[in-house]
Amino acid sequence: PGSKLPDVGTSIFAVMSALANEHGAINLSQGFPDFNCPDELIALVTKYMQEGYNQYAPMPGMPALRHKISEKTEKVYGYRPDPDQEVTVTSGATEALFAAITAVVKSGDEVVVLEPCYDSYAPAIRLAGGIPIYVPLALPDFSIDWELLKKNISRRTRMIIINTPHNPTGAVIPREDLEKLANLTDGTDILIMSDEVYEHMVFDGKEHVSALQIESLRQRSFVISSFGKTYHTTGWKIGYVVAPPALTAELRKMHQFITFCSVTPLQLAIADYMDNEEHYRSLPDFYQAKRDLFCELVKPSRFELIPSAGTYFQLLKYDAISQEHDLDFAKRLTQEIGVASVPVSAFYHNKTDHHYLRFCFAKSEETLRQAAEKLVKL
Amino acid sequence: PGSKLPDVGTSIFAVMSALANEHGAINLSQGFPDFNCPDELIALVTKYMQEGYNQYAPMPGMPALRHKISEKTEKVYGYRPDPDQEVTVTSGATEALFAAITAVVKSGDEVVVLEPCYDSYAPAIRLAGGIPIYVPLALPDFSIDWELLKKNISRRTRMIIINTPHNPTGAVIPREDLEKLANLTDGTDILIMSDEVYEHMVFDGKEHVSALQIESLRQRSFVISSFGKTYHTTGWKIGYVVAPPALTAELRKMHQFITFCSVTPLQLAIADYMDNEEHYRSLPDFYQAKRDLFCELVKPSRFELIPSAGTYFQLLKYDAISQEHDLDFAKRLTQEIGVASVPVSAFYHNKTDHHYLRFCFAKSEETLRQAAEKLVKL
Ligand SMILES: CSCCC(=O)C(=O)O
Ligand SMILES: CSCCC(=O)C(=O)O
Repeated sequence: PGSKLPDVGTSIFAVMSALANEHGAINLSQGFPDFNCPDELIALVTKYMQEGYNQYAPMPGMPALRHKISEKTEKVYGYRPDPDQEVTVTSGATEALFAAITAVVKSGDEVVVLEPCYDSYAPAIRLAGGIPIYVPLALPDFSIDWELLKKNISRRTRMIIINTPHNPTGAVIPREDLEKLANLTDGTDILIMSDEVYEHMVFDGKEHVSALQIESLRQRSFVISSFGKTYHTTGWKIGYVVAPPALTAELRKMHQFITFCSVTPLQLAIADYMDNEEHYRSLPDFYQAKRDLFCELVKPSRFELIPSAGTYFQLLKYDAISQEHDLDFAKRLTQEIGVASVPVSAFYHNKTDHHYLRFCFAKSEETLRQAAEKLVKL
Repeated sequence: PGSKLPDVGTSIFAVMSALANEHGAINLSQGFPDFNCPDELIALVTKYMQEGYNQYAPMPGMPALRHKISEKTEKVYGYRPDPDQEVTVTSGATEALFAAITAVVKSGDEVVVLEPCYDSYAPAIRLAGGIPIYVPLALPDFSIDWELLKKNISRRTRMIIINTPHNPTGAVIPREDLEKLANLTDGTDILIMSDEVYEHMVFDGKEHVSALQIESLRQRSFVISSFGKTYHTTGWKIGYVVAPPALTAELRKMHQFITFCSVTPLQLAIADYMDNEEHYRSLPDFYQAKRDLFCELVKPSRFELIPSAGTYFQLLKYDAISQEHDLDFAKRLTQEIGVASVPVSAFYHNKTDHHYLRFCFAKSEETLRQAAEKLVKL
């Protein structure tokens, strides 16, 4: 019997990181910081482990953490989800995405996926028996092409997946687009999954608008976030989903059998650390400074800088340097120049190539300087 | 649109734990210890967090941990799996079970499930489009009824799931039964999933025989274990799967999109701590002493002790006390007597009731004494 996901090969993140290691290249490919999380957070984890909080958490998440998520959601987005019925802690945002899709997508259901996009959406849809309907975002700014989106909606559409701030492009969905999406789906059975893991990384005074802020969207949405990006702990795997009670009930049925619960001492430590509002309020400036530094250093190069309004990624267009396919160019850049990135074609189901590479700037100033130094030589 | 798992309600573990809390009962329901993991393990986690190991692990697991799993497997079972191609770290055994089932079960496939069994097998099978074929274990010793098993195998059988040592009954599958299973499936396409999370809890000088020890079984098996039971860290969610390269490749495609990876500092700490072979070698005596204490204290009661050869669970038959359904009796025992257990009917798809309750004896001597004191009064 053949594979259930015959097309899936090694993840592009693993491919590029392995190549970076092999060639001693600076690794700006996979999205994670090269600096540590706050000491205070580590001390809290240690405290809870020592106090004996090392056994199963309740399936929906530790009550303390769900409560804090609820409070913070109200503070930031003006909506207070019920911690018992609308907040579920998952083993990273990846599990959250998988569980939400698995919970509601049935055989033959169509799910609209805006491309480029994170590589886990489509396999999760296909495993649930659904059909991904790929709708490309419009160049040059990766905005939603409303005519095209509408054309791709049918009576079989079960869900539309959005991601803002957007990986890999750094685009941010403006409020009026969320309102259009609400209008488009009001009165239908279409659900929304809104992947907002970069919610605290939006630059130049722009604001992140959450699907939770548009009432009629909220009522049909799984809103997914994670502490990995916000607290520089991508390896801790604590994510969460905010969704109305009926959707949360279905999501939890999946979560119960997918991982059952997430790591107890990490949940408790994060719950305490969330009192430090300054941490996430300072993130936009913290990451904007990194973006600005990276862009300033790369400007003298032959790369074209594509504006990044959010996330910790910067796209560079290399048209002036080469006409190679972006995967080939990304590999050569790693091997010969010593900087690893991710080719944006990896985020398209048919590997559409616009000659863009994605660089992660969640790195120390030193790392960014060394990388840029190499890129300007090209 | 209706639920994809309409029959799934709140997990029995959550129900009984909540009831225990509400009534201040001693909680011997959900399987987890009430004592802490080794201090040394906690110190190692802290060390790795402080050293900055807080970002994504490689998708298949940290190489150090996969290597140690491979070494230990050879030491204990005489087979050395290739850490790169045959060992995958997952977010607990629950994710391992879910991923293995999702990797190979297709629409219409039948999967044989020996009942009573852990409650996640069947939902995972159904979500994959498969059909669970329930085959009850034979009373009184919960052994495999080979005639019945054979009758339930068809051309559509894709997988047989076994669990040894067995939750909830404490039965241990003897070597000759694993050999029979090998003979039964040799030359077929039938795969085996062997859930062995209680591998280090086998009593009275008996030995746990792993599916890895029978060569032809190994070649068709996903063998699943976890560090949660072995290191008293059920809340850390680090499990793993040993499977031949072709099965591992399919499993990893699922793992990549289900959780991508598991918690980095925990993986590294466990890898180091695995050098302490004394820890798992002493577990049988450690838990046998607890079982023996609990049994000795309960003996004067009207409960009948069902022999437990492994796991950290003890079944008690309450025929002499009541003829209630075991769920009702378990609730009453929690509310009125102050001891929470799990009704064994919860492990049968049709809630078959043989008047058995499951008690977790992974508890301090004090807790076991207090619980038994209440049980003998009945
Ligand atoms: C889970 S690996 C991918 C990490 C990530 O979010 C990215 O690089 O896009
Ligand atoms: C994941 S909750 C169930 C824990 C357990 O293994 C059991 O009690 O059987």
